Amino acid sequence: MATESKSLEITKARQTYSSELSKHVGEEVVLKGWLYNLRSSGKIVFPQLRDGTGIVQCVALRNTVSPEVWEALKGLGQESSLMVRGTVRADERAPGGFEIDVVDAQVLQPVHDYPITPKEHGTEFLMDQRHLWLRSRRQHAVLKVRHTVVQAVRNFLDNDGFTLADAPILTPAACEGTTTLFEVDYFAGEKAYLTQSGQLYNEATAAAFGKVYCFGPTFRAEKSKTRRHLTEFWMVEPEMAYASLEDVMALAERMLSHVAERVLENRVEELKVLERNISKLESIIAPFPRLHYDDAVSRFEWGGDFGAPDESYISSKFDKPVMVHHYPAAVKAFYMARDPERAELALGVDVLAPEGYGEVIGGGERATSLEFLKEQVALHELPQEAFEWYLDLRRYGSVPHAGFGMGIERCTAWMCGIEHIRETVPFPRMLYRIRP
Amino acid sequence: MATESKSLEITKARQTYSSELSKHVGEEVVLKGWLYNLRSSGKIVFPQLRDGTGIVQCVALRNTVSPEVWEALKGLGQESSLMVRGTVRADERAPGGFEIDVVDAQVLQPVHDYPITPKEHGTEFLMDQRHLWLRSRRQHAVLKVRHTVVQAVRNFLDNDGFTLADAPILTPAACEGTTTLFEVDYFAGEKAYLTQSGQLYNEATAAAFGKVYCFGPTFRAEKSKTRRHLTEFWMVEPEMAYASLEDVMALAERMLSHVAERVLENRVEELKVLERNISKLESIIAPFPRLHYDDAVSRFEWGGDFGAPDESYISSKFDKPVMVHHYPAAVKAFYMARDPERAELALGVDVLAPEGYGEVIGGGERATSLEFLKEQVALHELPQEAFEWYLDLRRYGSVPHAGFGMGIERCTAWMCGIEHIRETVPFPRMLYRIRP
Repeated sequence: MATESKSLEITKARQTYSSELSKHVGEEVVLKGWLYNLRSSGKIVFPQLRDGTGIVQCVALRNTVSPEVWEALKGLGQESSLMVRGTVRADERAPGGFEIDVVDAQVLQPVHDYPITPKEHGTEFLMDQRHLWLRSRRQHAVLKVRHTVVQAVRNFLDNDGFTLADAPILTPAACEGTTTLFEVDYFAGEKAYLTQSGQLYNEATAAAFGKVYCFGPTFRAEKSKTRRHLTEFWMVEPEMAYASLEDVMALAERMLSHVAERVLENRVEELKVLERNISKLESIIAPFPRLHYDDAVSRFEWGGDFGAPDESYISSKFDKPVMVHHYPAAVKAFYMARDPERAELALGVDVLAPEGYGEVIGGGERATSLEFLKEQVALHELPQEAFEWYLDLRRYGSVPHAGFGMGIERCTAWMCGIEHIRETVPFPRMLYRIRP
Repeated sequence: MATESKSLEITKARQTYSSELSKHVGEEVVLKGWLYNLRSSGKIVFPQLRDGTGIVQCVALRNTVSPEVWEALKGLGQESSLMVRGTVRADERAPGGFEIDVVDAQVLQPVHDYPITPKEHGTEFLMDQRHLWLRSRRQHAVLKVRHTVVQAVRNFLDNDGFTLADAPILTPAACEGTTTLFEVDYFAGEKAYLTQSGQLYNEATAAAFGKVYCFGPTFRAEKSKTRRHLTEFWMVEPEMAYASLEDVMALAERMLSHVAERVLENRVEELKVLERNISKLESIIAPFPRLHYDDAVSRFEWGGDFGAPDESYISSKFDKPVMVHHYPAAVKAFYMARDPERAELALGVDVLAPEGYGEVIGGGERATSLEFLKEQVALHELPQEAFEWYLDLRRYGSVPHAGFGMGIERCTAWMCGIEHIRETVPFPRMLYRIRP
């Protein structure tokens, strides 16, 4: 690396980000970043500088910069780190609307063998280079959308009176059996498991705070290798005391509409990079169509859960997400409340996203009766002792309550219009991948 | 539980929260919650209703409610679930400023043996009952402060141009050896570990996004049983490319000032419940005093890290947090940049909170040189192969960068003025506790 003494002035100068250039037209600024691309033609070079907030084209003329700067810039390789001092010029033809007329530059580290080149690389190679791949335009765009999805969800819930109540990651037992749980060595030979859902804990905090949500990583040790599965993924789970299936559906459609609105508002450039069909997002506006399971299932055999192709078929009939409700209790979790008029139905809902994205939200009303839940725990062969605290919630002030879980990666993939959720998280964890 | 048919009207009525009463003075509303306390005197009962947003006193007169309602209310036990219809009356003497004149009520579930009574319980008992203990006034207040701390941190970073980039929880190797790591059985006999810090990953995302943060649970398999330790705790870690130790200190003091300001602004009632000395929070205003390790250590032997008593001694001399910087490199992590003029010093900083709360933030500038880091990896006997991806960040466009980590539970305990961090998280995980 170059030492600081060479050009201390530029190193110490306040950094201007490429996203702020509109405020500095005509001014001299210092940009700090990495070389994204370089074109040159004889006495002029055009280094494109990437600084995390965008990419800006710089223009350096041989006869206006020093010989040292000219030499440093002219053969520079992709992802070299450099700082540029120059004047901001508005230029309608430039990608971001501005260019920099270079006055001075300092290369921190010249790079000549950056492993990700413009040629096509296989996904496995790119995933091995994930720590570098994140710098590429498309991956950058996807993760900016993820940022906005998370922010929109949190702001929506905070503004709607929900209290954040983080659920534990290390849990003593499972919601739904132990076959898809990751096991952890806790202390003194005790086993713990990585959470699959914060919901049971949410039910306790909802009784303390009324409206709550947890938002954290969840884990499934499923040996699935589909484009919709990660072993580690983030989930937001709101839960409301004194609430019904109806309230959950109303919350889900309001929240998803808000998320789509924020993405459309704040991620214009990224959606362009991703070539996202904007109209698909513009149609995510509450209310969403609602479909009773009886009607959704008409093409399939009654009684089963929907697989990915079934979900795609159902959602393909709507240009908005569709809310399928009143599933057969047999395919849903033990804690689901039952339809008082048809006990074989659970008061549950899945929100199926259009364009084949499938289930992004699942939730419903929870059973309130202690006796019913004890029966269910026994029926599902769960250890009642481990659920005593949960059953306490039905002993001490049981109330109707309801909530749902939304997977952040699935929602982000949908917003981005990309095929595989592995690109929606900085460092995906899958069946055969825990690196880097 | 009572069936819905008895008083369907009140069940279906829109719920008004006790936090909203100022907007409904003179109106008839329906409140839904749990009995917090009940006083009665002959022909009048005063049920205090807790609904998650606050506690409101209701007044029911024997001769204005139906005999059924009177019977249901008069002997009701703590934490019974009930709904009340009544008129909102402003009353300066009432705790929240309002009372409800009861017109009708419906008890959903009468409770007579709620395990947490007004008598003193031991902490172990209360922790066993954590799912219920959360309903108590003090625990409620602490977790509302936590909510505000998290919200303030996220809003601050989002508004400051940081991109959320979640670090993975399941990691193949450790930042700092494997002795305090929880081991997980991944697939096909492969071992994974629960993250202790997202920092190494942040360094990759900072090179992609400029300014980033991760915010998630982290894990330490330490056999510590102190009031400052949890095995599972939440950490926010901002990281900035093209940044120095100075930038980290400026960010830390701005962020903490913002958090204190938001807590003071939004958690007035909770701070009262906690009997927090407000002036302690009002003095958390940037700039914070800065203390070179050489000067901080004057009472101790040069070269060591500070233990909790040392930190308390140092911070007791200031009424603001104090930033101790330039620690001996030997007590800090391998990736710390060195002082160019005194190579035995790391460009690191710990922010020590006053009142004995100790280190709430630790961070600094990261080493940029590939050769230096290779040496450090070898010196610390870390497997270089596992760090190759991290070393790539010094091969491909290495830049000065810096960041820090802040523990949410320690910060929350400090804001609340409470002694033990186990109360700052809904379901704490400690050496001998993974339940409920």
